[in-house]
Amino acid sequence: MAEGELEAVRKCLREFSIEARELFLGRSVPYLEQPPSPLRFHREWLCPNKPCIIRNAIRHWPALSKWSPAYLRAAVGSKLVSVAVTPHGYADAVFGDRFVMPEEQRMPFASLLDLIESRGGGGVDGRRGVFYMQKQCSSLTEELPELIGDVDTEIPWMSKALGKHPDAVNFWLGEEAAVTSLHKDHYENLYCVISGEKHFILLPPSHRPFIPYELYPPATFKQREDGSFDVVDEEAAEKVPWIPVDPLNPDLERYPDYGLARPLHCTVRAGEMLYLPSLWFHHVRQSQGCIAVNYWYDMEFDVKYNYFQLLESLSAVLGKN
Amino acid sequence: MAEGELEAVRKCLREFSIEARELFLGRSVPYLEQPPSPLRFHREWLCPNKPCIIRNAIRHWPALSKWSPAYLRAAVGSKLVSVAVTPHGYADAVFGDRFVMPEEQRMPFASLLDLIESRGGGGVDGRRGVFYMQKQCSSLTEELPELIGDVDTEIPWMSKALGKHPDAVNFWLGEEAAVTSLHKDHYENLYCVISGEKHFILLPPSHRPFIPYELYPPATFKQREDGSFDVVDEEAAEKVPWIPVDPLNPDLERYPDYGLARPLHCTVRAGEMLYLPSLWFHHVRQSQGCIAVNYWYDMEFDVKYNYFQLLESLSAVLGKN
Repeated sequence: MAEGELEAVRKCLREFSIEARELFLGRSVPYLEQPPSPLRFHREWLCPNKPCIIRNAIRHWPALSKWSPAYLRAAVGSKLVSVAVTPHGYADAVFGDRFVMPEEQRMPFASLLDLIESRGGGGVDGRRGVFYMQKQCSSLTEELPELIGDVDTEIPWMSKALGKHPDAVNFWLGEEAAVTSLHKDHYENLYCVISGEKHFILLPPSHRPFIPYELYPPATFKQREDGSFDVVDEEAAEKVPWIPVDPLNPDLERYPDYGLARPLHCTVRAGEMLYLPSLWFHHVRQSQGCIAVNYWYDMEFDVKYNYFQLLESLSAVLGKN
Repeated sequence: MAEGELEAVRKCLREFSIEARELFLGRSVPYLEQPPSPLRFHREWLCPNKPCIIRNAIRHWPALSKWSPAYLRAAVGSKLVSVAVTPHGYADAVFGDRFVMPEEQRMPFASLLDLIESRGGGGVDGRRGVFYMQKQCSSLTEELPELIGDVDTEIPWMSKALGKHPDAVNFWLGEEAAVTSLHKDHYENLYCVISGEKHFILLPPSHRPFIPYELYPPATFKQREDGSFDVVDEEAAEKVPWIPVDPLNPDLERYPDYGLARPLHCTVRAGEMLYLPSLWFHHVRQSQGCIAVNYWYDMEFDVKYNYFQLLESLSAVLGKN
């Protein structure tokens, strides 16, 4: 009896997710040819929590034409920046039976540019590991404030729509091998590509019941003198809940529910901006040396968050994760 | 095992509803002293699906000073209008083991005014039954178009916020004994009181798991010559799902889950406007002869509707209703 009702609850969650696609999400990420008005953006994208790619939103940014390697070397080449270094490109991801964070190396920005250019051109440099400038502490304003004049300190129509300023403006520069593993953020995210392209795999919050979480002891990569990496456990740290599924190669035998997920794939090209709504799961790759700037606006913790927390707790009961 | 998980699912739904109140709903309906801008209204009330009472939104309406009984008799006294008549004031409600709809009588508007004034003054008229002009077919524009110039054909900031015009503008005039039973609508509702006051009992969509629905054969009240009422079954009609709980006197022995509901009570006075969000359950009473005009804007069938449908289907599984 209870078993039948529990199966009925599972069916409710499956149908809910299918209905989300049929009602309002569709099967691909739509394009807007112009940035919308603040009200229209709120009504058509923010409030329904729908992603879109916006063209012509950043065409006035000097960065689009100015940010050549030569210009960046001249402007900020000597500045020390924080770079995530990993053996295989996966930072903040499940590796074996650990949740492994990257080694953070401080280096002159020019050194990172050299490395990326050399490898992109088929060259060989003396270092091992995959390098990704990906720090999300408002890295553009904190580490490279000289560049902020080439973009905007905020996206005016987004700030007006939300009635607030961004919490962080981050600068991203990475190698093709660098991957951001599947996760979600408590932010409304505007992700602007300056050069190269970013590849996103997106899963809506309604897919939460199909996405497994497991608990992993946290650890950090440490690079030795010879360039090889150790995985060093964090001392006395609490386990971290993380998603063990790689959307590029999901292990459906171990995580069969993930087979019900229907990811949206999109590529954001230079000059384009992705609106990545809060609580959407995302996995990100890029072309070699892709440069991007993103704006994180704090999400509202109201009705959609409330409903999502219900999904979280139901998923924990039903999936035991 | 499954029994334990099912109880855990029930607990998720209870905690979800408590969290809704703590996160964003609060324990009373807040007041705004001025109508907000379209964007602000969208951001702070429509999108989070939160009710509020707005003052000074209709103070420019001639109706507020003009709509005396004498004026209304002169302007539209001879017009035939549709009036719901019931023995005890409950139209569209559970009565015994039926879902009973009111008798609809066509009468001159002046006759309805006479009846309401006479009873309100302690007088006795020859009729029996409780009378309520409550038709929701855009009754103001359809039945009393002469009055539309005294109000607005739409609420400009609401139409701009939603990017659409209202589906219906309804005129309400009723007796103190007339009650609208607990139900929800697929509309964003702006409810404006012209004279007298309306008493609302509101329950958020997150309370859906605590609100029972049962299936009832539909029937209609028919008044005899002597003024008494028969309940006449609808021929070959499908059963109607309706809420059997009266929030003024809930039968908690029969519907114990309703005991978990925390209704919000509010009174909307002459000159005030209630924003009653889509999918909120509401029960309505009024002062004798209260006149109101409401605007129904079609809701968006997107993320919140999707989540609410999940609540509906989970409630059906767990409450077997």
